[in-house]
Amino acid sequence: MESIANTPKPPYYAVIFTADRANVTDGYDEMARQMVEMVQTQPGFLGLETAESRVGILVSYWDSLESIRQWQQHGRHQEARVRGRTEWYSAYKTRICKVEREYGHHH
Amino acid sequence: MESIANTPKPPYYAVIFTADRANVTDGYDEMARQMVEMVQTQPGFLGLETAESRVGILVSYWDSLESIRQWQQHGRHQEARVRGRTEWYSAYKTRICKVEREYGHHH
Repeated sequence: MESIANTPKPPYYAVIFTADRANVTDGYDEMARQMVEMVQTQPGFLGLETAESRVGILVSYWDSLESIRQWQQHGRHQEARVRGRTEWYSAYKTRICKVEREYGHHH
Repeated sequence: MESIANTPKPPYYAVIFTADRANVTDGYDEMARQMVEMVQTQPGFLGLETAESRVGILVSYWDSLESIRQWQQHGRHQEARVRGRTEWYSAYKTRICKVEREYGHHH
């Protein structure tokens, strides 16, 4: 996985997922690994950026709201989301966004 | 600073800033501290979420594109951005987004 996602020219969509981890970590690493692997094979997936300090932030990029919906309804992903909500996260927020503009820089 | 930003009901705006750090770190921590302090006093600022692993992700939330523009044109912030581009980051991307929907969960 690249560190800065190489996304196309806007508009496209972003899902910003921010979470506070709970004390329970059983099964988390394996599920997270599976999800990162699976999400990259989904139709309409454009890229992924992730970092974790006091809070975890995961931003995924998509070609359409329909692609986001498909991934959210994916069976294995739904299972991960239920376990996240009930076991691994004490709090989280998911924001669905339309990326309107982007700019950047590489040395 | 809270870990998950307590933002209002959408729509509102998000700036997703993703960066790879360069080897130069002179002055970075002090500038980062100042920027985090200053951004929270800007008109239209709604919240901030930040995490750093292999890549650094900083998401700030705003009431309007105009508030984002004002902050980007702020003198001290412009100075920080120039130093970021020339000294502290080997690559970065800034994405301006409209947050259309959000949902979440607290235990």
